[in-house]
Amino acid sequence: MGLHVLKFGGTSVGSLKRMEHVADILIERAKKHQVVAVLSAMSGETDALLQSARHFTHQPSERELDVLLCTGEQKSVALMSICLQSRLQKAVSFLGSQIPIRTDIDHTRARIEEISDTKIRKALEGGSIVLIPGFQGVSDDGDLTTLGRGGSDTSAVAVAAALKADLCEIFTDIEGVYTTDPNVEPLAKKLSKITYDEMLELASLGAKVLQTRSVEFAKKYNMPIHVRSTFKLVPGTWVVEKVDPMEALVVSGITYTKNEAKVVVESMPDRIGLAAELFSLLGEAGVVVDVIVQNVSKDGTTDISFTVPRDDLSKAMEVVESHRNSLKQERCKGDPHISKVSVIGNGMRSHSGVAAKMFKVLADAGISIQMISTSEIKISCVIDEQKSKEAVKVLHKAFELDKIEPKEVNDFA
Amino acid sequence: MGLHVLKFGGTSVGSLKRMEHVADILIERAKKHQVVAVLSAMSGETDALLQSARHFTHQPSERELDVLLCTGEQKSVALMSICLQSRLQKAVSFLGSQIPIRTDIDHTRARIEEISDTKIRKALEGGSIVLIPGFQGVSDDGDLTTLGRGGSDTSAVAVAAALKADLCEIFTDIEGVYTTDPNVEPLAKKLSKITYDEMLELASLGAKVLQTRSVEFAKKYNMPIHVRSTFKLVPGTWVVEKVDPMEALVVSGITYTKNEAKVVVESMPDRIGLAAELFSLLGEAGVVVDVIVQNVSKDGTTDISFTVPRDDLSKAMEVVESHRNSLKQERCKGDPHISKVSVIGNGMRSHSGVAAKMFKVLADAGISIQMISTSEIKISCVIDEQKSKEAVKVLHKAFELDKIEPKEVNDFA
Repeated sequence: MGLHVLKFGGTSVGSLKRMEHVADILIERAKKHQVVAVLSAMSGETDALLQSARHFTHQPSERELDVLLCTGEQKSVALMSICLQSRLQKAVSFLGSQIPIRTDIDHTRARIEEISDTKIRKALEGGSIVLIPGFQGVSDDGDLTTLGRGGSDTSAVAVAAALKADLCEIFTDIEGVYTTDPNVEPLAKKLSKITYDEMLELASLGAKVLQTRSVEFAKKYNMPIHVRSTFKLVPGTWVVEKVDPMEALVVSGITYTKNEAKVVVESMPDRIGLAAELFSLLGEAGVVVDVIVQNVSKDGTTDISFTVPRDDLSKAMEVVESHRNSLKQERCKGDPHISKVSVIGNGMRSHSGVAAKMFKVLADAGISIQMISTSEIKISCVIDEQKSKEAVKVLHKAFELDKIEPKEVNDFA
Repeated sequence: MGLHVLKFGGTSVGSLKRMEHVADILIERAKKHQVVAVLSAMSGETDALLQSARHFTHQPSERELDVLLCTGEQKSVALMSICLQSRLQKAVSFLGSQIPIRTDIDHTRARIEEISDTKIRKALEGGSIVLIPGFQGVSDDGDLTTLGRGGSDTSAVAVAAALKADLCEIFTDIEGVYTTDPNVEPLAKKLSKITYDEMLELASLGAKVLQTRSVEFAKKYNMPIHVRSTFKLVPGTWVVEKVDPMEALVVSGITYTKNEAKVVVESMPDRIGLAAELFSLLGEAGVVVDVIVQNVSKDGTTDISFTVPRDDLSKAMEVVESHRNSLKQERCKGDPHISKVSVIGNGMRSHSGVAAKMFKVLADAGISIQMISTSEIKISCVIDEQKSKEAVKVLHKAFELDKIEPKEVNDFA
């Protein structure tokens, strides 16, 4: 008998009927294992609560917002507990403040500091399925806190780590992690396994499968995550520390971003501290910068290009223009029509030539690269937005992601 | 500067717009006094939550039901806090588990054992309005508990007692306590003052203004209650320990019941223990008996009449009939068409003749009295249901309740 932590998102518990389906899954699992279920608020609930708060003000107090939002997940666990008990399955709910799940006091984006396992273990040993509301915790002062959007994933992984569970399964409305967006490339394949590092790159690049922080947690505690569908009970994608080299892929996924923009600040007199000054100014204005590229010319001037969220483009341009006195740029150009296409793969650590292949594939397709950024397991190219989907398709084919065979996966369930 | 506890019911906070009106009241009060507000769930919320639970089972676990129901009041206090803060009024919410409001573990009908005033006082001294969800508490084990329907009234009075507040105001959708049901007698007058004992008799007789337990609490701690309207800010009714004899009324109110029935068990051979046996049998069957009258005839037989909720009439009849062997009654008759009309008044303690007057007034109106029951401050007559409204009217007139003048009331507000 193992200990399994199962997390169900808002869509999975989005109606009383769907809750009954989740109850089926939990009861089936509880026949062989101890089960902890972490639940989100019913879909739509959190948004409705936020809308009520915003009726009064667009900047509600974060402490009180947390008190308000915590009701959503609390409803879910109470109802699921009642549902399970109606089927004669022992079940008990514990709120974040009851366990307790201790966090810092940073309301609406708190970080988990400690989770006590006493109450949970006692209930598990008594044969109960334990239901825990995701997303919420409690500060040292006893104030309710929440972990930010998608925080229920983090709750689940953190609870699994605290209990030294055998695994953490994230039930959601997709079947797993794909080599790329199936809406763009119908030949996209579901990955059987992927490493934490790859998942982190995928998540931060816009594949909204798992909250980034939950993957960091899983990596820190080496907790295997299984991302799978609530509605189609087939194996999903395992997110793990290492993938056996024999089955590892050089490239695991291709992503592209929407809603990014590029700023090019041209011909500034180069000097020490110039870049620091520019990005400090942008930071103070609250503009989050992603890719940065700097070129220095022989004439002693420099161009700096960077990408920002599209909504922040005009703000970024204003910041630059309003400091012409110190930056002394010749021009500042903005381009709202760009996209960042990335190739991600743990195999890049040991395989050379991936970058060269990516650039060649794009060139052969007539797609011009505007900026390049790389990490150990990722290569990103900023290109014309209109070409982004085509870029995904040609890269997906060139790295033979359409030829992945479904692998036998060690499904603990 | 005093300390005022203000409680608002579900209708008073039934919409975001109404919450804004309540915020106005609280902010106005906070200019002169320290303010604690106890809030109910928005109207309809508790019923909706119950309905969700009943989707799964008609007997949901009471522990989990409490977890579910507590979300309603939690939402109210968080939203009100956000609303007050949006108007630059300092405010903070504390849940029952945070204060804590300690109760026993009797889920869905818990009783308050202790309320800590530390957090509340600190917040009040810091200039905040303190918002407390009504209806909820926490057990020694840290489980959430609720106090039963109408429990928010009890929360408010108990919090007021714990804080040694100057007063407790119950804001509701009626203007106060009336001499009788204004729907029956348009000449009914709002009472300026009434004693705890009178209020208890009124409440238990069907005037659904305050939860009975809240009045018992107020009596125990001698906490003045002011029942008043949220929507029309005029003085309501004070419920207090004593009313000055100069302004005391002999009779304060007339009530009548709906949905009661009468059972008459005729001609049982009289013997010691007969009544005890009959009412034990009824009690075991779960039938709650109200008025009981016994007559013993010269021939050694006895008749016992009693009233029960109308829904229990056939069950009560069955119990009697199925024990004919021991009770040996000649007949058992049921009458579903009765009503209990009562005259209540603290002044009866010192004024004789109230009962005689009541009987005469009913007789003069041609209304026959079937049963009589009295307490120190109440006289009840069971009569034909069809005559109940007429009885209320003639009694209201005879005791000159239509002539009460509105009194100047020492309104602390």
